[in-house]
Amino acid sequence: MAIAYEDLIIDLPDYPAPGVVFKDITPVLADPEAFASVVEGIASHFADAGITKVIGAEARGFIIGAPVAVALHAGFIPARKPGRLPRETYAATYELEYGSDALEIHKDALTPDDVVLIVDDLVATGGTVRALVKLVEDTGATLGGLGFFMELGFLHPREAIAEVTDAEVLSLYVVE
Amino acid sequence: MAIAYEDLIIDLPDYPAPGVVFKDITPVLADPEAFASVVEGIASHFADAGITKVIGAEARGFIIGAPVAVALHAGFIPARKPGRLPRETYAATYELEYGSDALEIHKDALTPDDVVLIVDDLVATGGTVRALVKLVEDTGATLGGLGFFMELGFLHPREAIAEVTDAEVLSLYVVE
Repeated sequence: MAIAYEDLIIDLPDYPAPGVVFKDITPVLADPEAFASVVEGIASHFADAGITKVIGAEARGFIIGAPVAVALHAGFIPARKPGRLPRETYAATYELEYGSDALEIHKDALTPDDVVLIVDDLVATGGTVRALVKLVEDTGATLGGLGFFMELGFLHPREAIAEVTDAEVLSLYVVE
Repeated sequence: MAIAYEDLIIDLPDYPAPGVVFKDITPVLADPEAFASVVEGIASHFADAGITKVIGAEARGFIIGAPVAVALHAGFIPARKPGRLPRETYAATYELEYGSDALEIHKDALTPDDVVLIVDDLVATGGTVRALVKLVEDTGATLGGLGFFMELGFLHPREAIAEVTDAEVLSLYVVE
């Protein structure tokens, strides 16, 4: 049975800024059937893609990325904020509304033999995802696909992603 | 076959401070068999405990907590740093070496009907865990157990946890 995600997601108008409608997905994670459906929906779509590693961005990308890795019998690579990984890293910066931020992975986290799935809870402008694509490329690994729970289609993330990769993009729930 | 976690964990002497040996577990997460073994080891131990929700602390607690939730057919509740959850929260502070920090959960994340498993990658002094125990208590839910990948036994976290709960504690890998 298909899960009606829209019945679980809580819209918060004017949060965190006037005119923005924040989509709170924590009730989806808290619902056993819905959470399992998100993980299974992404994992099953990429089941035949030969994925060896799943990468997710700190912090919310860990929540969906890690169980997708387990479901695909893959390893999980956390992409972390600067300074939180203890060994040598690759870093990629990305633009925020004001200023920029960065993500890092250990240099030995991926090898050219790896086929990598990028997973995140949300894709909006695509900035975080483009940083993840760059990190995967830095290691010489192959990008095998990108899987998201929610896509804010009105921000056109697919166009931003298409500028840097032609890997397949799956979004389970698209807000037009 | 039992996984030799100690062959995967990387010891980093004098990180982040002189005299401290940092245990880098990212190679455990990156290894499909080892990561699956960690998740299955915690989930199977609490399979008959009636767990309805798993709670994990930002950010590394999400990596193991979320797949344990899926394995137990439970929901996942992220305990986040202050200001990152958009609706009304309970908060609990805990002591750090210098100063203090806090974790928050949405007030409606747990109900008195829930049986909750606390999951984290590491238990050291037990400070974070004690904050999670308080958050569970604030909601009226029942604490059904605590599951960790690694326990730094020489910091005596079990004594610190026993001061606040008599729920069962499981650690898969203990550093004496």
